[in-house]
Amino acid sequence: MAGQVYYEDIEAGSEIPALVKYPTTMQLVKYAGASGDYYQIHYDKDFAIANGLPGVIVHGWLTLSFLGQMVTDWLGDQGALVKLSGSYRGMNKVHEDIICNGKVAKKYIEEGGNYARVEIWAENPQGEKTVTGAAVVTLPSRA
Amino acid sequence: MAGQVYYEDIEAGSEIPALVKYPTTMQLVKYAGASGDYYQIHYDKDFAIANGLPGVIVHGWLTLSFLGQMVTDWLGDQGALVKLSGSYRGMNKVHEDIICNGKVAKKYIEEGGNYARVEIWAENPQGEKTVTGAAVVTLPSRA
Repeated sequence: MAGQVYYEDIEAGSEIPALVKYPTTMQLVKYAGASGDYYQIHYDKDFAIANGLPGVIVHGWLTLSFLGQMVTDWLGDQGALVKLSGSYRGMNKVHEDIICNGKVAKKYIEEGGNYARVEIWAENPQGEKTVTGAAVVTLPSRA
Repeated sequence: MAGQVYYEDIEAGSEIPALVKYPTTMQLVKYAGASGDYYQIHYDKDFAIANGLPGVIVHGWLTLSFLGQMVTDWLGDQGALVKLSGSYRGMNKVHEDIICNGKVAKKYIEEGGNYARVEIWAENPQGEKTVTGAAVVTLPSRA
């Protein structure tokens, strides 16, 4: 993290620092318990393959959570994540990088708050988008 | 379950009803979260095989818990499990039966309580003992 980002520092098109995550089988098992999503494709390789998948698959909302982590890392202590949303588009496999990306779509002031809308997306190592979405954030002002 | 068992019904050598459990990958993942034992041999087949095991292995204390379930099923509402202990002896594999057995070792009255000590053991389908131990229980009296 490169210190606090301010509303004046960004504009539409600004990229935010990418975050690369490497999910392990242990992380997926812990996420199963944390989320209550015990679908076997997320830990049972034989089950996953028998169901036509290439292997154990990352929970889509874990990938969205990584996108949220990327945004909150960028926001710093004085920014706030107001809204996070995403859609599942494709598979991330366990033991493969998840590349999280974001770009500011617009900035605006509303009821005295300094807002930005950030387009976010995750990719697998093949460059396929796996989760796409948006974050709404507030940022501090230098004023 | 066959109704309440009483202290007068048992003697040394009495067998208690066996319990057969069939652990699934989902049960092991849930047990990982419940116990905090996230060792990968209990859910990651590739990891288990790379570590010289035949596949995913049941947590030993989950097997002991099944032995406890056998005992408390037998005790009925009016009996109580006072102590449960066991030692790990061998492997139960996921998706294989675990056969839980018990036999009364002795019965005795102590400080007005009607006690029994029960030898307990679990087996895998090959007939190998995998967890062995003992339970101390109290039983109601017909008197």
